[in-house]
Amino acid sequence: MTAVVNRRLYILTILLAILLLPGAGHAQNDRDSANVKRIYEEALAHGEAYENLRSLTKGIGHRLSGSPQAAAAVEWGKQLMEDYGFDTVYLQPVMVPHWVRGGEDKARIVGSSRVGDMDVDVIALGNTIGTGPGGMTAPVVEVQDFDELKKLGKKAVEGKIVFFNRMMDPKHVTTFTAYSGAVDQRGSGPAEAAKLGAAGVVVRSMHVGHDDVPHTGSTRYQDDVKQIPAVAISTEDADLLSKLLKDDEAVRFHMETNGRMLGEKLSYNVIGEMRGSDKPDEIIVVSGHLDSWDVGEGAHDDGAGVVHAVEVLRIFQKLNIQPRHTIRAVMYMNEENGLRGGREYARVAKEKGEVHVAAMESDSGGFTPLGFSIDGTPEHVVKMQSWAPLFIPYQVFLFVPGYGGADIGPLKDQGVPLIGYRPDSQRYFDYHHTKADVFEAVDDRELHKGAGTMAAMIYLIDKYGL
Amino acid sequence: MTAVVNRRLYILTILLAILLLPGAGHAQNDRDSANVKRIYEEALAHGEAYENLRSLTKGIGHRLSGSPQAAAAVEWGKQLMEDYGFDTVYLQPVMVPHWVRGGEDKARIVGSSRVGDMDVDVIALGNTIGTGPGGMTAPVVEVQDFDELKKLGKKAVEGKIVFFNRMMDPKHVTTFTAYSGAVDQRGSGPAEAAKLGAAGVVVRSMHVGHDDVPHTGSTRYQDDVKQIPAVAISTEDADLLSKLLKDDEAVRFHMETNGRMLGEKLSYNVIGEMRGSDKPDEIIVVSGHLDSWDVGEGAHDDGAGVVHAVEVLRIFQKLNIQPRHTIRAVMYMNEENGLRGGREYARVAKEKGEVHVAAMESDSGGFTPLGFSIDGTPEHVVKMQSWAPLFIPYQVFLFVPGYGGADIGPLKDQGVPLIGYRPDSQRYFDYHHTKADVFEAVDDRELHKGAGTMAAMIYLIDKYGL
Repeated sequence: MTAVVNRRLYILTILLAILLLPGAGHAQNDRDSANVKRIYEEALAHGEAYENLRSLTKGIGHRLSGSPQAAAAVEWGKQLMEDYGFDTVYLQPVMVPHWVRGGEDKARIVGSSRVGDMDVDVIALGNTIGTGPGGMTAPVVEVQDFDELKKLGKKAVEGKIVFFNRMMDPKHVTTFTAYSGAVDQRGSGPAEAAKLGAAGVVVRSMHVGHDDVPHTGSTRYQDDVKQIPAVAISTEDADLLSKLLKDDEAVRFHMETNGRMLGEKLSYNVIGEMRGSDKPDEIIVVSGHLDSWDVGEGAHDDGAGVVHAVEVLRIFQKLNIQPRHTIRAVMYMNEENGLRGGREYARVAKEKGEVHVAAMESDSGGFTPLGFSIDGTPEHVVKMQSWAPLFIPYQVFLFVPGYGGADIGPLKDQGVPLIGYRPDSQRYFDYHHTKADVFEAVDDRELHKGAGTMAAMIYLIDKYGL
Repeated sequence: MTAVVNRRLYILTILLAILLLPGAGHAQNDRDSANVKRIYEEALAHGEAYENLRSLTKGIGHRLSGSPQAAAAVEWGKQLMEDYGFDTVYLQPVMVPHWVRGGEDKARIVGSSRVGDMDVDVIALGNTIGTGPGGMTAPVVEVQDFDELKKLGKKAVEGKIVFFNRMMDPKHVTTFTAYSGAVDQRGSGPAEAAKLGAAGVVVRSMHVGHDDVPHTGSTRYQDDVKQIPAVAISTEDADLLSKLLKDDEAVRFHMETNGRMLGEKLSYNVIGEMRGSDKPDEIIVVSGHLDSWDVGEGAHDDGAGVVHAVEVLRIFQKLNIQPRHTIRAVMYMNEENGLRGGREYARVAKEKGEVHVAAMESDSGGFTPLGFSIDGTPEHVVKMQSWAPLFIPYQVFLFVPGYGGADIGPLKDQGVPLIGYRPDSQRYFDYHHTKADVFEAVDDRELHKGAGTMAAMIYLIDKYGL
């Protein structure tokens, strides 16, 4: 349904772009073409985002909110933008939750008539409490969704480990759609299971396909519901566990985790600006989030977005493109397990009465660019789509209504059009929230072409408004 | 220039697609939409191309024409299509050149005042003669192109090793355009250098960017020109060598290679068909090439194309789509160093008076699909573009006039429209003709989405003609 609407809007706009831009529009278009070309060429031939990403991922590594590495990343981001000599670079204080894994996560399938006892690789979900030393062992009840869980009821669930095993639907073209259809198991599964007296939760990893890597990510406990331990297992082990359970209902699961939430900690959003010439008090945000999960190196999620944002300003600077509005690069803290950075940014913006022309976020990885989705009015959509012809020579075609981004989401209340940078999503869940999300998983040209695409769009928004 | 023409044609066609397909066209469109959806869903949720690629690359590995592995790959391809139960599976004999590397390629920078003597990683170009045991050592003269070489003249070149060091221009959006602008150095450099009496050639690897992996590939000697040894060095070592030469003209280069051309050998194109219901004597080809270079596993080049072709037929079979025309999957032999398979296929087709509706080739890697380029009449282009709206929900947007493919090229004389499958090209030259082109470099979803895209296009060509 959405696809059909998107398609019609897309086609309609291509039409509009041709029909409404003759004569004077043409000359303007030629100048824009030339600048868009300069922007892409700078990004592709002299891009610095990739080396900046190397510095962040290899120099600091993963950086969960509240961790020493997150503090280091704040310094890194500030230093990077100061070294580029942006007009203003500053830190915006924000209190963040501080969760720690607390040790190695361990698990074992126990008492299978087929395989006996067998260790499996797991990763505790973010924000969870641990089982404590010695762990816990319990029978397993497998469900596909909350409806099935509720039908089973308290009697069948009490004291057991609930195994949420609904797969991400591979038929979806964008993997984020498949993710949306499955991630409730991770986000709310532990709370829903606890309501029925479950002792713990195992979630099938948010991966579309089959491999042996477990994926972490946030879960949200609910007030007045007991907090229970929860882990994710790889899709291959999920399939195995499911099969063993079918053969043999007596199979139990052992898990030992050590997570705990410490007191809140002071951290920062990192902000750098290039001041506008005409309208310095009107702001265009380009952003990503600086924190990551505590595994891998947070390269695609969201090191890529952070270096994208900086690269947009660097390209403007390098090409002597003087923006009319103030272009602000924002590195949010705590997207992964609290969204405190994004919320604080919006709160401060409101308090100061700041005017935001638009806010763009890159938080879908450093893959080859498809285009943008925009969460705004139909007029915003049509205006963005009117620029589509400028992107076609760069094989960037996607200009659709849709999601903006988690960190910029809180700006919506202030009427700010939110723009999500949309790279190709096929590989995203090979890496997301795992030890595999490392620098080597990012391609330099894909990353740089993305930065060029974002810079070109920011250039057009700055020139024409949105 | 081409980009501008392509863009206009593209936009024009989207217009045409909307304006020319009202009423009856709409109903037809809905049925087509449904079938295109079934095709993509089968490819994404139940694709077998990835496991077939694993079998080819891990079971056989690289497979240069004339090698035992190439013979094994022929058997593999035939067996695979027989196992699927395609209507006809057969081998088409073709004589191929048989070049062997003959041993380890070695090289050394010699007598640098900076680094002294230093081993560098090289790979002999395909089809080259070797230096023989002990190798050769000579002074180096660096040039950017053939003009510069010719200006230097015989006196400056004679007895020396010519170092072609022009980089692939990273400003090009598609890496294949950058490749086209640089590959003459590899293809004709040794012959051009030999005309001026050079003793050997070193070519900067065909990689856009910087890494330490040398890339092989064909060179073509010319009749009446002395054959001289030639190697490629990595882009990083090319930069190093260039820098050392600037400091110190006395730097020499040592290379030891063992290549030789053996007698021609009998090999085969591997062909499998799904017979058409209405017009069994009219053929639509979908194809890739089975041979690869003798390093890595030939995964992107062109294992991906081979399993793509088979997957198109498998999808038709699985979904009970009965084609009107005969759909023929072709695995060509010897694209890499002779193109004998493609030439023989076209020769036989002409001899038999076969009618080809269209020929499609996948030889640009197993990356995420962008769309297609077509080498045909303007009418062919417009017809293909009229189907663009059916692909937009799958984020496939590229329908442009352009290159078909090397192996299908010889069919052009017979007026066959040639269609090149166009995946995103940003990562292609990270792997092309190197030890890095292995199964692990291919993503399952990107490969399968490509197969679905090809199958959907073949479905439309079969239904409506081209």
